[in-house]
Amino acid sequence: MLRLTFLGTASSRPTVSRNVSSLALKREGRLFLLDCGEGTQRQMMRYGVGFSLDDILITHLHSDHYLGLAGLLRTMSLQGREQPLRIWAPPGAGETLRALRDLGGDRLAFDASVHELQAGEAVEGEGFRVEAFATEHTRRSLGYALIEDARPGRFDVAAALALGVPEGPLFGRLHRGENVDLEDGRRVDPAELVGPPRAGRKVVYTGDTCPSRETVRISRGADLLVHEATFTEHESVRARETGHSTAAGAARIAREAGVRRLVLTHVSARYAERPGQLLEEARTVFPGAELARDGWSARVPFGDAEPGDPDP
Amino acid sequence: MLRLTFLGTASSRPTVSRNVSSLALKREGRLFLLDCGEGTQRQMMRYGVGFSLDDILITHLHSDHYLGLAGLLRTMSLQGREQPLRIWAPPGAGETLRALRDLGGDRLAFDASVHELQAGEAVEGEGFRVEAFATEHTRRSLGYALIEDARPGRFDVAAALALGVPEGPLFGRLHRGENVDLEDGRRVDPAELVGPPRAGRKVVYTGDTCPSRETVRISRGADLLVHEATFTEHESVRARETGHSTAAGAARIAREAGVRRLVLTHVSARYAERPGQLLEEARTVFPGAELARDGWSARVPFGDAEPGDPDP
Repeated sequence: MLRLTFLGTASSRPTVSRNVSSLALKREGRLFLLDCGEGTQRQMMRYGVGFSLDDILITHLHSDHYLGLAGLLRTMSLQGREQPLRIWAPPGAGETLRALRDLGGDRLAFDASVHELQAGEAVEGEGFRVEAFATEHTRRSLGYALIEDARPGRFDVAAALALGVPEGPLFGRLHRGENVDLEDGRRVDPAELVGPPRAGRKVVYTGDTCPSRETVRISRGADLLVHEATFTEHESVRARETGHSTAAGAARIAREAGVRRLVLTHVSARYAERPGQLLEEARTVFPGAELARDGWSARVPFGDAEPGDPDP
Repeated sequence: MLRLTFLGTASSRPTVSRNVSSLALKREGRLFLLDCGEGTQRQMMRYGVGFSLDDILITHLHSDHYLGLAGLLRTMSLQGREQPLRIWAPPGAGETLRALRDLGGDRLAFDASVHELQAGEAVEGEGFRVEAFATEHTRRSLGYALIEDARPGRFDVAAALALGVPEGPLFGRLHRGENVDLEDGRRVDPAELVGPPRAGRKVVYTGDTCPSRETVRISRGADLLVHEATFTEHESVRARETGHSTAAGAARIAREAGVRRLVLTHVSARYAERPGQLLEEARTVFPGAELARDGWSARVPFGDAEPGDPDP
C-alpha cells in the first residue's frame, strides 16, 4: 500500500480552509512526513494519520514548512514515545532545526536527531528509498522522491502449469529468479516463466521551487507528482522573483516528465475564494491536473496494475 | 464593549476539537492576545478575531502557550504590518521568546519587542490596565487581569431637570464632577445629582496554576474569571505535582473570590470524550460554572448594568 495524505496545502499563510505545508506519505506501514508547518500535529489528528513515524523530511527553512516540528515533537514526548526520530533537511538547516527542537529548555523523552542531506542522498527503506533532489528556491531547498526498487516481472502461471511445475513453493522460487529441478529430472529456467522486471512506483514532492530541470529529471515516468503552484500566470513575474511556480509552469514540468498524475499544492491565500483558477490554468497544459486540499488522501497504484491484481 | 473569545482551550496537547491555549480579549477596539499556542493565527482567522493587536501577553514558557508566536508574527509581516508590537512575558522568558521570533533568520517587517513583566506591573490602557499577577506553576508564570478604572456614579436626570438644569452640555459637565452655574445665578453641586463612583469591570485569566491565594486576591469581585481546570479531582495528586488545578479547585477559588462568572479552560486531552465531567465537578462548588470551548465568545457587561443602559 502506498498512500499520501495532504495535511496542509496553503503557501506562506494559512487560511481557514488550508493549513501550511505538510504531506504524509505512507508505504506499507512506514510513515514519512514531508514538511511540517505550524499546526501539522493537529492536522494529523484531524485526518487520522497517526503519530507512528520515524522520519520527517523538511524541504527548506521557510517558516511555513517547519515551525510545526516543535509542537509535534513535544506531543510525541507527552505520549511517551521512546524510539528515536530522525529529521532530515537541506545543508545548513541543521542548526535552526536543533534550536527549534530545544527551544525553551524542554527535554524530549526520546532522541530526535537532525541530519542534513545533500541532493542525491536518500533515506533508505526496505525495497525503496526517499531521495533528495535539488530545487530552485530563494534559499537552499530540496524536493523528495519516494522511489521503489524494480519488482520481478509477471509470473506466467499458465505456462508454469503447462511445463508440469506443481503449484506451490516452486512458483515463488522461480519468480525470485531461481532455477528449479523437477522430479522428472528436467530443469526449469525462470526466464521461460517470468517477464522482464517491472518498475516500482515513484512519488515526487517538490516543496517550493521554480520549474526546474532537476524536477523533470527525477519525475520522469513518476506515478504521482506533487508540484507547488503558488500562483497563476498573472503573477508570473512575482513567481519568478520569489522562487515559486505558476500552475501552468508546474503543468509543463509534469507534461515534459511524462508523469501519470499531477497534483498541485502550496496555494497562495489570494486564491482562497477561487482556487479553481489554478486548476483551469494547469489543465490547459496537463489535462488531468488535480488540486490538493487539506485532508485529501490518495492511493498510488502500480502503473501496470491489472484488474484482479492483489492490492499493492 | 468588552468581549473575550476562546481561541484554544486544550492543555498541553491539542485535540481535534480543542487547540492549545490562547484567549483574545477585546476592549473598545483594543485587542489583547493572552497566550499564543501553536496554530493560534489560524484560530484567529477561523473565529474572526482579526490581527489588529499591539500586545501579546504570555503567561509562561510551556510550549502550548507560546509556540504560535513565530507563525503569527511572520503572517503579520507578510500582511505588511508596520506598527510595532509588544510581547509581554514573565521574568526570564525574554531570551527564549526573542530566539523564537528570530528563528531561521527571517526579518520581520515591523518591530516586535519582548518585555518581561514582574507581578504587579501592568500594561496600561486608556481607562484600564492589564495587570500581571503571580501564579503557582512548575516554572515562572503569571496570570493577567484586565481591570477597568472606576466610572463616575449614575447621573440622576430626573433630579437635574427638577432643579432646572437644562438638558444639554451641562449634564455632561455635572456628570464629570464640575460645579455648574445656572442662568438664574444658582450654583449646582454635582454631588446632588451624581451617585457614588461605580466599579469598572474586571476579567481575570490565570494561565496555568495551582489554586492560589493570589488568584483569590486579584479576582475579588471579578466579572469573569477564566481559570484553568486541567483535571478532575480523580487526578488531584497529579494536578498538584504538575502545578495545575482541578475543576473543583478552580471553583473553590471562584467561590472564595466572589466572582460573578467562572469559565474553565485548559482541558486535558483525557477528557476529550467527556468534558462534562469537569463541569459537573465544578458546579458542585460553584453552580454557575461554565466550560470554555474553542470559538466561544462572550461579552462582559457591567455588573451594575440596568435595562436600557447603552451597550458598554
